[in-house]
Parts: sequence; C-alpha cells; structure tokens
Amino acid sequence: MSNPQVGIIMGSTSDLRIMTDAADILDELGVSYELTIVSAHRTPERLFDYSKSAKSKGLKAIIAGAGGAAHLPGMVASLTSLPVIGVPVKSSNSIDGWDSVLSILQMPGGVPVATVALDGAKNAGILAAQIVGAFDQTIGNNLDAYKEGLKDKVIAGAEKIEKEGFR
Amino acid sequence: MSNPQVGIIMGSTSDLRIMTDAADILDELGVSYELTIVSAHRTPERLFDYSKSAKSKGLKAIIAGAGGAAHLPGMVASLTSLPVIGVPVKSSNSIDGWDSVLSILQMPGGVPVATVALDGAKNAGILAAQIVGAFDQTIGNNLDAYKEGLKDKVIAGAEKIEKEGFR
Amino acid sequence: MSNPQVGIIMGSTSDLRIMTDAADILDELGVSYELTIVSAHRTPERLFDYSKSAKSKGLKAIIAGAGGAAHLPGMVASLTSLPVIGVPVKSSNSIDGWDSVLSILQMPGGVPVATVALDGAKNAGILAAQIVGAFDQTIGNNLDAYKEGLKDKVIAGAEKIEKEGFR
Amino acid sequence: MSNPQVGIIMGSTSDLRIMTDAADILDELGVSYELTIVSAHRTPERLFDYSKSAKSKGLKAIIAGAGGAAHLPGMVASLTSLPVIGVPVKSSNSIDGWDSVLSILQMPGGVPVATVALDGAKNAGILAAQIVGAFDQTIGNNLDAYKEGLKDKVIAGAEKIEKEGFR
Amino acid sequence: MSNPQVGIIMGSTSDLRIMTDAADILDELGVSYELTIVSAHRTPERLFDYSKSAKSKGLKAIIAGAGGAAHLPGMVASLTSLPVIGVPVKSSNSIDGWDSVLSILQMPGGVPVATVALDGAKNAGILAAQIVGAFDQTIGNNLDAYKEGLKDKVIAGAEKIEKEGFR
Amino acid sequence: MSNPQVGIIMGSTSDLRIMTDAADILDELGVSYELTIVSAHRTPERLFDYSKSAKSKGLKAIIAGAGGAAHLPGMVASLTSLPVIGVPVKSSNSIDGWDSVLSILQMPGGVPVATVALDGAKNAGILAAQIVGAFDQTIGNNLDAYKEGLKDKVIAGAEKIEKEGFR
Amino acid sequence: MSNPQVGIIMGSTSDLRIMTDAADILDELGVSYELTIVSAHRTPERLFDYSKSAKSKGLKAIIAGAGGAAHLPGMVASLTSLPVIGVPVKSSNSIDGWDSVLSILQMPGGVPVATVALDGAKNAGILAAQIVGAFDQTIGNNLDAYKEGLKDKVIAGAEKIEKEGFR
Amino acid sequence: MSNPQVGIIMGSTSDLRIMTDAADILDELGVSYELTIVSAHRTPERLFDYSKSAKSKGLKAIIAGAGGAAHLPGMVASLTSLPVIGVPVKSSNSIDGWDSVLSILQMPGGVPVATVALDGAKNAGILAAQIVGAFDQTIGNNLDAYKEGLKDKVIAGAEKIEKEGFR
Repeated sequence: MSNPQVGIIMGSTSDLRIMTDAADILDELGVSYELTIVSAHRTPERLFDYSKSAKSKGLKAIIAGAGGAAHLPGMVASLTSLPVIGVPVKSSNSIDGWDSVLSILQMPGGVPVATVALDGAKNAGILAAQIVGAFDQTIGNNLDAYKEGLKDKVIAGAEKIEKEGFR
Repeated sequence: MSNPQVGIIMGSTSDLRIMTDAADILDELGVSYELTIVSAHRTPERLFDYSKSAKSKGLKAIIAGAGGAAHLPGMVASLTSLPVIGVPVKSSNSIDGWDSVLSILQMPGGVPVATVALDGAKNAGILAAQIVGAFDQTIGNNLDAYKEGLKDKVIAGAEKIEKEGFR
Repeated sequence: MSNPQVGIIMGSTSDLRIMTDAADILDELGVSYELTIVSAHRTPERLFDYSKSAKSKGLKAIIAGAGGAAHLPGMVASLTSLPVIGVPVKSSNSIDGWDSVLSILQMPGGVPVATVALDGAKNAGILAAQIVGAFDQTIGNNLDAYKEGLKDKVIAGAEKIEKEGFR
Repeated sequence: MSNPQVGIIMGSTSDLRIMTDAADILDELGVSYELTIVSAHRTPERLFDYSKSAKSKGLKAIIAGAGGAAHLPGMVASLTSLPVIGVPVKSSNSIDGWDSVLSILQMPGGVPVATVALDGAKNAGILAAQIVGAFDQTIGNNLDAYKEGLKDKVIAGAEKIEKEGFR
Repeated sequence: MSNPQVGIIMGSTSDLRIMTDAADILDELGVSYELTIVSAHRTPERLFDYSKSAKSKGLKAIIAGAGGAAHLPGMVASLTSLPVIGVPVKSSNSIDGWDSVLSILQMPGGVPVATVALDGAKNAGILAAQIVGAFDQTIGNNLDAYKEGLKDKVIAGAEKIEKEGFR
Repeated sequence: MSNPQVGIIMGSTSDLRIMTDAADILDELGVSYELTIVSAHRTPERLFDYSKSAKSKGLKAIIAGAGGAAHLPGMVASLTSLPVIGVPVKSSNSIDGWDSVLSILQMPGGVPVATVALDGAKNAGILAAQIVGAFDQTIGNNLDAYKEGLKDKVIAGAEKIEKEGFR
Repeated sequence: MSNPQVGIIMGSTSDLRIMTDAADILDELGVSYELTIVSAHRTPERLFDYSKSAKSKGLKAIIAGAGGAAHLPGMVASLTSLPVIGVPVKSSNSIDGWDSVLSILQMPGGVPVATVALDGAKNAGILAAQIVGAFDQTIGNNLDAYKEGLKDKVIAGAEKIEKEGFR
Repeated sequence: MSNPQVGIIMGSTSDLRIMTDAADILDELGVSYELTIVSAHRTPERLFDYSKSAKSKGLKAIIAGAGGAAHLPGMVASLTSLPVIGVPVKSSNSIDGWDSVLSILQMPGGVPVATVALDGAKNAGILAAQIVGAFDQTIGNNLDAYKEGLKDKVIAGAEKIEKEGFR
C-alpha cells in the first residue's frame, strides 16, 4: 500500500472493531490509506511524530478514532494543517458516548476537527474520500456511483415491499 | 467573487450573525467563496437545485449552518458527493443547542456531514480551507502561517503574564 | 388496499420492526393506508415525488419514521401541507434515542411535525386515525370503542389483583 | 367566535405569552377557535368537563400548552378521542425545557399526543389547521398559500444578500 | 387487610415487578396498605374516584408508580391533599428513565409529589412508613430498628473483609 | 415559635432566597416550624447533632435544601427516621440544576429523601404540611381550603379571558 | 499490611467488583493501603470515625467509591483535610451513571473531591500513588516505569498491525 | 516566587477570570506556585516542554484549566507522572459545561486527571494544597485552620438567623 492518501489512526487496538469500517469503505472507493495505532495519552511522542510528518509524506486527510475523553483527533489537529476527521468511539466505560462526542466535537476556534456520528467510522472513510474526490475525478466518480448504489438498494427494498407486502 | 471554491449557505438570515465567521476566515486564508440563504424546510426546491449544481460549478466543499431540527447540512449531503461541513447554530428556541448538534452529527452510514462545534462557523471555514489546502500549496502555506499566528499570540500572552503578573 | 387515507413511510426496511405497529392499529381501527420505504438521505428525489403527490392522491395524513439524524418527517412536512406525524426510531447507533427525538421534534416555526414518543409507531397510527376520525364518524366511533377497550383491560387487571392478590 | 373548530387551552395565564402564537396563526389561516385556561393540577374537574364535551361541541382538534411536569395535554388525550396537540412550554422553573418536552412527548401506547417543539405554539396552530385542511379545501388552500409565502420570504432574503452583500 | 393506612397504585400490571418492593417493606415495617391498578391515561374516572375517596377512607399517604410520561402521581396529588409519593418506573420505551423522573418530579407550585429514585419503590414504602411513624410510635420504633439493621449488615460486611480479605 | 413541627435547614445563607418559600407557605397553612443553617460539608458535626435530636424535640418532618453536590438532605435522612424532604437548589455553579436534583433524588434503598422540583421550596412546605395534616384535622382542613383557593384563582383567570379576551 | 499510606473505602460490598482495581494497581506500584466498607447513609457514625482518624493514623490519601446519590467521598472530604479521591460507581439503579458522577464532582467551594472517571477505580489508585510519589522517589520511579510500560504495549500493538495487518 | 510547589496553567488568558481563584487560595494556604498560559491546541510543543520539565523543577502537582473540548489536563497527565488537577471551565461556546467536564473527567485507565467541579478553580487550589499538606505539616495545619474557618462562618450565619430572624 505505497503512497497512501489517507491515514487512519486510533487510540487502541480495541478500537479496530469500529475503525476497520473506515478502511473497508476506502478500499471500496479506491482510496489508498495506511492504518496504525497512536495513543494520545500513552504515546504522546508518537502522536507528535505522526502528526508532524503527515503532510510531508503526502497524506491528504487523517481519520482519528478515540473513545471516552477522546483527545487524539483534536491533538492531531493541533499538530498538522491537514483536515482531521474525528470518530467518537463508544468505549466500554463511556457515559453513553457523550464523552467521546463532546471531547471531539467541541474544539476551540482555530483548530477544527471534522466530527462524524458516534461509531461512524464508515462515514469518516467516505468523508476522506470526498476530500480526495473533490480534486481527483476518478474518486469523485466512484463516490457518485456509490451514491447511486445506496439509492438502488432503497428502491429495491421499496419495490419488494410493494410487491410482496411488508409482513 | 468569480469561481468560488467554497459555498456557504444557511437556513435563514438570522444565522448570518454566526455564519459570517466562516466568510471572514476564508477571506483571511485566501479561499474564494459564495454565500447565500437556502432553507431546507421553506425552500426545498432551492435546496435541490443548489446541491445538485454545486459540483459542476466547481465548488470543492459546502458549509451549511442551521439550528433546531437542523436538516440543511444532511440534505445537502444527500444530494451531492462533495464534502459538506455542518455548523450547528444555537437558535433562539433551541434546547441548549443539543437539537442542532445531534440532527447534524448523527447522520446514517453512507451520507456523512463533517460537523464542527456549536456556533463553530470559524472552524467550518478553516476546515474548508484545509480541504482546499490539501491540494493547493498556497492555501496550505496560508494555513501553516495561520497556525503559527495562533501559537505566537498564546506565547505573547504567556510572556506578558510572566513579566507583568496575572492580576 | 385502494384509496388509502394514510401513508406510512420509513427510511429503511430495518425500521419495519417498529413501524408495522402503525399499520396494525390502523387495520384495527378501520383506516386504509399504504406503506413503503422512502429515504431522505439515500433517495431524496423519491422523497420529493412522494411528498408532492401525497395530497392529490387523497392521503389525509403521513406517518414518517426515522432514526438518528432523522430528517424524513421534517422534509416531508416541508413538501406538503398535509399533517405529518413523526416517529423517532431508536436505531442501532442512536445516542439513546435523543438524536431521533430532537431532530424530529424541534422543527422551526412554519413547518410542524406531530411528534410521538420514541418508537411510538402505534400512537402514530392512532393519531392518524384521530385526524381521520375528527371528520369521519365511523372512524370516530371506532376510536371511542378502542378507548373503552383500554379501560376495560385495566379494570379487569385491577379486579384480578383485588381478588387473587398481587404476588 | 361561534362554532369553533379548534380549542386552545393552557395551564395558566402565564402561558399566554407563548400560546397566543397559536391563536394568531389560526386567525391568519382562517380557522375558528376558542381559547381558555384549564389547569390539570389545580382544576382537574374543569379538565374533565372540557375534554369530555369537546367532541360533542364540534371541536376537531385541541391544542394544550403546559410547562414543567406538563400533564395537561396527556390528560386531555385520555379523556377524548379527538387529536390533541401538545405544546411544551419552557416555564420559569423548568430544567431547560426537558421536563415539559418529555412529560408531553413520551405518552404510553394507546393515548397519543401530537407534540411540537419547545414553545412551538405557532406550529401547533399550523398543525391544527392542517388537520382541518385535510378535509376542508379552503383551509387546505390557505395552507398552500402560507407555504408559498414562507418560500418567497427566504428567496427575497437570498436575493437581497446576493445583490447587496451580506455584511 | 382492613383499614389500610397506605394506598399503593400503579398504571399497569407490568409495574408490579417494581412496585411490590413497596408492599414488601410496608409488611416488614408493620404498616397496613392496599394495592391496586389505576391508570391516569386509560382509566381517568377511576383515578378521580380513587383519589377523591382516599382521605375519607382513612389513608394517610398514597404511593403512585408510573413510567414514561408519568402523570399518575401528579394527577392524584391534584385530587387529594394527602401526601403523594411518586415512584418513577423505568418502563420499556422510556428514554433512560428521564421521562418518568421529570414528569413526576417537576410539579408546579401548589401541588407537590414526594419523588423517590428511579425504580425506588422500596424507598417509597419506607417514606410512607416514616409519615405514619412520625405520629405512631410503634411504627417509629420499627423504623429505628430497621435503621439499626442496615447498619449492622454494613458492619458485618466490613468485619468479614477485614478478617478474610476482600478477594 | 415554641414547639415547631417542621425543621427547615439549608446549606448556606445564600439558599434563603429560595428556602423562605417553605416558611411562607407553612405560615399560611398554620404549621409551626424552625429555620436555621446546617452545612453538610462545612459543619458535619452540627449536621449530626441537628439530625439526631430532631425526633426527640418533636419535629414531624425536616425540609433540607441544598445545591450542587447536595448531600445535606440525604445525610440528614441517614441520621433520623423522620421523613426528610429535599429541595434541589439551583446554585450559581450548578450544571443547570442536574447535580442538585440527582444527588438528592437518587438515594440508595433504605434511606429515602422525598424530593421536590428544582427550587421547589414552596412545595416542600406544602408536603410537610400534608404530612402533619394527615394526622391533624385542622391542618388537613387548611390544606383543603388552600386547594380550593388554587382552583378559584384559575377559574377567575379563565373567566376574565372569556369575558375580556386574551390579548 | 501495617502502616498503610492509602485508605480505600466504599459504600457497599457490591462496589468491590469495581473498587478492587484500585487495590490491584496500588499493589503493582508498591503503595501500601487498607480497604474496608464505610457507608455514608447506613453507617454515618463509622464514616465520622474513619474520616476523623485518617490523618492521625498516617494515611496520605483516601479513595472513596460510591454510586447513585454518592455522598461518601464528599462527606469524607468534609471531615478530613487529606486529599480525597472519588470514584463514581455505576450502580444498578443509576441513571446511566450521571447521578454518581455529579454528586461526587460538583462539590461546593472549600471542600474538593478529586473525581475520576465513571468506574475509574484503577485511575483512583494511580492518582493516590502519584500523590505519594510526588514526595517518595521510589514510588515516583515506579510510576515512571508504569508509564513506560503503557507506551511499550501501544507500540507493540502498532508494530504487530503494521507487520501482520489489521484484520 | 522561587521554587514553586504547584504549577497553574490554562489554555487562554480568558480563563484567568476563573483560574485566579486557584492562585488566591494557594496564597491564603501558604503554598508557592507559578502561573502561566499553555494551550494544548495552539502551543502543543510548549505543552510538551512544560509537562516534561515539571517534575525535575520540583513541582508537586499541576493545576490545568480548560474549556470546551478540554484536552490540556489530560495531555499534561500523559506527559508527567505528577498528580494533575483538571478544572473544567465553562467557556462561552460550551454546551452548558458538559463538554469541559466530560473531556477532562473521562480519562482512560492508566492516565488519571483529578477533576474538580465546573469552574472549581478554588477547589483545585485546595486539592493541590492537600497534596502538599499530606507531607508538609505546616501546610497541613493551614488546611485544618482553613476548615475551622469555614465552619465558624456557617455557625455565625446560623446564629445571626436564630437571633435576628431570617427575613
């Protein structure tokens, strides 16, 4: 996987359960990526190195997933001017996910994190592809086709119900 | 303002109070934009037309601000494959902003909205610039310089306190 | 089921689990209906067509169920002047249902959605029947009989406890 | 105001501040109404009498506004099979409006209340008009015209901004 | 069970699961009671009759349990000047219990409900006993003994840990 | 004020703003009381002494108001078997009153606190009077008269509106 | 275990499930401790004795865990000037843990409790060790080594993923 | 201010409004401190340097205040093994303070932050003094005297009320 366009990082291997959704959809949409573990709280130096080198190694966006007091996305955003996409993960001791959501979403003026829904790693992947696709026509076309596919599935479901009934 | 790269829309002129922050920072960062009013609930046809034509007229990202049951960002995202940045606006009858935040953030799989903080139009502008800047080196450099400026202001404040005391 | 008086729509076949309650109670109360899938985010054109034609094809009310950032009920309400009843569905990634509730309930002035309880599809059906029953005496009588039935069941339960004890 | 189609009630004269919005929009839409004070907690007998006689005196819908532990809309709904529209009022000691919203919205199966947004009396009025308008073509046309008016105002605002700028 | 001092009521037989805790502790404390089903929303006339006759038949306190938009305790309190103890029950469609808690707790000035913890029927029973015990020395002594028993159990647990270790 | 039946205590003189409502209504209802300051966190010994002696000096109920992490009502309840009524006070640094409400309401099994609405000192006073009035016919009659007065005021307000209009 | 530096207490043996995490990490970090049961609501005298004697018997910090309306940590803090660390325990009837968190965290000015995350007994243990370690170099070194160990585990996980892939 | 024992830092000079309370109480309790500005998001390198050198320059505890997505306390805690006290500041765009509270409190296992109440800088100062005072008898005595002073003020207030009345 040489020359990745998107970096996917997360605070712990236990977040893989959620975060592989981002990798899967990037695969489907034809966007190259790398994936690894970076913990804001347990490997702060690694956080610095990863974030500082992201732009120069050619990444166009970083997806960062974390749970609880989730500082990873915001701290990456403090260390790079690339767009950072934050995935609030509902971890085991989370207070219903509110902690993850608010500590990623409510960044101060000057340092944005593009936050997606709780456990929304798939949408984080699509958003990263949209960023790439705004400038790369092939990816842009893949996204349009993906959108058509979503529509087709809904219509197929509707037709099935109208034909066969809903029970 | 010919050939804008970013579209800024909002549900009502009363949102201008918040949403001009996005325009101001895009001006500062050298990113071209257009700004207008599109209401999901009162002008749904206009919402369709705006969203459907956004890609072909060259926009790279759309910033959409709305309050209460805020459907504008998500509906734009359903109609274009450009990245859509949602700004939850704390409107007058909002329940402390929770309605705006949740109805923008919690999009279903397949249709992401890049959500920023409550009333975070400035960060929406920066995020749009980061999307452009990931592919346009001039904007990328402007963002790096902006980041340095933020740092300098904090350090100046710290030095003042250390010299003159904090009271 | 020709000439339906109530339209029941939902964002996804996974909502059927909840939304069939609306159909069941309409059957019981003698109100005709149609049921299909319309997704605000994945089939926005279908949303437009369905909503725009609802009045002319004779519907008297529309029941729309959706979860998460639930835009379906509000967007239908933006496209028709029929009464729209919104059912907040507690979907799998929902933040305890708050997202569904707030993004349906907190509509701006001018575009109401008649919101019922979380997963309250049965009450949505009754409410649709009440709308019809306000003008159709047969349905109105069915509703009165239904109300008596609710009362009878409670009193039977109370009498059983008073006779047989509660343990 | 003989032969009213809609009843507007509220728990206290202090709710008039919010609830007159319902009367104003009903006036605008050409729907007749009556308005009075009925307190679930201080005049329970009056609540019984009002609710029990509503249908026979020709009302088609009841709008009930209340704050805090807001029992008025639900108790009216327990006593009539007319559609009941509940307006959660943010009263002075309310916990940010959550108490009013939840005690109106979360009705048990069998007894629906059509809940609108916090302090959303205007939308309650429109919803009542939509119920009448589903069967009365004049009111239905008034609603369509009202909807056009909302659209025109947004478009006028948009044009002003596009011509004169947004600052 | 002639001449009961406390009335225990609840909206549905499904609440028995929680509400029998109140009966159990009243048995233990030697306070007589009656228990039945009264639904505010499905049997409003029964609610009236029960509440209006409570004082004259000698009850000293009423315990009322209900879930969701829980109107039973407040409506009983509107119809009697006896102390009413409300038990918020976490019913199946409840939004984490917040609806039950707020619609019982947040009563308007003039009509109090003595609210206990979510699913706190046992404490409702103790509170009813405390009301009786404030004037009846036997019950008062039973309560003091019960309190001693609670203490003894904690101290026994502490001693076991100190002797045998906590693992 | 010899031989008080109700004790009113609060954590700080700043709570007097709210808690005098309890005294006022007890005056109106003819129930004798004493009022003083007892802080759980700053005067724990005073808390012990007050609570331990309450029963023997003839109190029938204790009203305790506190804000934030409000431990006063629960700690009094741990030290006496009299009924304790808790008033959650919305203090200046409170998180919208939720801290006060939850730390008073959610007492563990065995040690109830009769909780009233946020800042609901008036209802705490009425509840204390209802406890006394369940056994003292004069107070009971005063409560019935008070209830009638509430009703009369609502009906007078309704009549005024019906005669003079609501604007 | 003579001469303990840290006291671990909790309201009930049912809290052991969570609170042994504090003991385990103190063992690992070489800090001596004692552990027992003290209930604020059921053994208030024991609470007094424990707290009052803590300083003189040589404790340097107290860890107190409790759930629901959790008064134990705050009441200990009112009775000693040692640092008190509060662990909000998510007990069975808790409202999602909010009650425990807020009734421990929101202490009034003058009486702090060092609050850790919901069910965060392990972090309470580390914090107690940090307090001791700020003055005791051996413990300080143990903490530095522990921190290195956390880092090593993350890096090992990252390397495994980079070598073997993440699926 | 040579040889400070406590470091007070905050994300922005706008936090001084709250954070000087920590300095004031440390002055009163005789604990030496330093105070400066360190922003996690705008000066991440300064955050690293400050945190890494804190222990070697003799600090015994660090107080860190921040608002919104408040990452400063947690990131300091990731970089030092000194005890870190976090002050959630209710900043202007905060969602009622919940974001600040949760992003400081809900730290993952291994990296604790001792969290105090919203805007609770005074208590952060007392907690820091308690940490020092656990090992330094002079400071310990100052804390005991401070505690006596709190008690005396409450008792003086109570006596005034008992003598002069509370109105």
